[in-house]
Amino acid sequence: MKTYLDCIACFIRQALDSARLITDDKQIHRQIIQQTLDLVYDIDLHQSPPAIAQKMYRMIRKLTSVQDPYSQIKQHFNKLALKMYPELRERIKTSADPFETAIRLAIAGNIIDFGINSVSEEPDIEKTIAESLTAPLDMKLLEELKDAITQAKNILYLGDNAGEIVFDRLLIEQLSYEKITFVVKAGPIINDATAQDAQTTGLADIVTVIDNGSDAPGTILDGCSAKFLHRFKEADLVIAKGQGNYETLNDIDKKIFFILRAKCPVVAKELGCEIGSLVLRKNRE
Amino acid sequence: MKTYLDCIACFIRQALDSARLITDDKQIHRQIIQQTLDLVYDIDLHQSPPAIAQKMYRMIRKLTSVQDPYSQIKQHFNKLALKMYPELRERIKTSADPFETAIRLAIAGNIIDFGINSVSEEPDIEKTIAESLTAPLDMKLLEELKDAITQAKNILYLGDNAGEIVFDRLLIEQLSYEKITFVVKAGPIINDATAQDAQTTGLADIVTVIDNGSDAPGTILDGCSAKFLHRFKEADLVIAKGQGNYETLNDIDKKIFFILRAKCPVVAKELGCEIGSLVLRKNRE
Repeated sequence: MKTYLDCIACFIRQALDSARLITDDKQIHRQIIQQTLDLVYDIDLHQSPPAIAQKMYRMIRKLTSVQDPYSQIKQHFNKLALKMYPELRERIKTSADPFETAIRLAIAGNIIDFGINSVSEEPDIEKTIAESLTAPLDMKLLEELKDAITQAKNILYLGDNAGEIVFDRLLIEQLSYEKITFVVKAGPIINDATAQDAQTTGLADIVTVIDNGSDAPGTILDGCSAKFLHRFKEADLVIAKGQGNYETLNDIDKKIFFILRAKCPVVAKELGCEIGSLVLRKNRE
Repeated sequence: MKTYLDCIACFIRQALDSARLITDDKQIHRQIIQQTLDLVYDIDLHQSPPAIAQKMYRMIRKLTSVQDPYSQIKQHFNKLALKMYPELRERIKTSADPFETAIRLAIAGNIIDFGINSVSEEPDIEKTIAESLTAPLDMKLLEELKDAITQAKNILYLGDNAGEIVFDRLLIEQLSYEKITFVVKAGPIINDATAQDAQTTGLADIVTVIDNGSDAPGTILDGCSAKFLHRFKEADLVIAKGQGNYETLNDIDKKIFFILRAKCPVVAKELGCEIGSLVLRKNRE
């Protein structure tokens, strides 16, 4: 997916969010904003938003020498989601259709995204869960995904954010998880899950976890490791969580099911849905 | 009020809104965004947000030769508000406290603001009215404003937006309006009300309407006409509608009551209230 001019204001807001997480020094805030303005001035709109964001966050890391400003946020949401885990697991178990409920909860967990949401507003996870359990969902495609999972021998599950991966774990526990490889980012980027989050949340205890070799907030194949690309090629089914993965993989020829919550006007428009919608989409093969 | 780094993303969003109202030509959209990026790069944060916005909208007018991109929007909301006028007037008349109800409605009307709201999302006026009739309001200050209006001999009412001025008219009709002068902007700026809107909505039939000699989306005294400044000096009470007037006049030594709806995080933080709150504030004298 290409970048829109609308994304520029969002990049600047993200830069300011990061700046404030890193330091109270307003001179540095301003420096980060100015370097972001420089970066977006000649923006190549053919690149995906995560490709631009990757450059921006690298610039911020270089300028401030702070590698992981979202570290505490990631820990907070891992803990919070783990606290909710037993109850949500029970809810899935006792629901009429555990697979559907698990998919709905996995989409609900995608609200924990501090690229799109400002860190100044804590997401209302309980409210999002309640909405997600009853909101419209493409039931035909849900069946298709269920069948695809059954038939697949080698599934790559591209994770999105810390905290959210507890919701992914709930879904994965409903599947034959010996055939699933879970993918995290290789380095800190916004609140995206890394290997450490997969450890903390127990996800690494039930599935193989690899990183994609990249620090982009999505999956930019050009920047991923040879190891990841091999696994990607070998996989007969890819489940991709979140907007960042959609924005970077929606044009790729591969059997990919995207599951996410539409959270910004640009992606909602691309998907032809309202902000807040539960999205289950299949790529062209 | 000074400008915050948060405002930069908002200026860029406003520029894009205007660009799209003016033309479908994406090259011009990009040109407008780039010139906005230039403008905010060396932004003087000691200036108020409307001072920066004034420069930006002048740049857009110069670049595109389109003087009033919000013309149709202004007409639309004047019409819409006029359609609601009889029912709202009746509601005021039959309410327990017509002055309070009229103030609440005047604040509700402040939702029609396309500087802060994106043009892509039409404000839900009915919903805002319903909320505004019961939301918390500083009742002590409301009494103080009522007394101040009774005692004043010469009231200047600084308007804000087209459409909204129908709600101002409803309030003004509750007052001794022979002592009120209503102030509009001298030239088109966003959807701020000009003399034409005061005519269209019948406001000019009941009170004296003057313009402030300026095209800023607020009241920047330095840029106002001598005529307006004379009236401002003579007035023993100023009622100032909307965020733009608050942002430009909150540091002025003058008896000013601000009435507005807090619509952006920066102003809400300055006022120490939540976004969406009904705001009635008095300046220090």
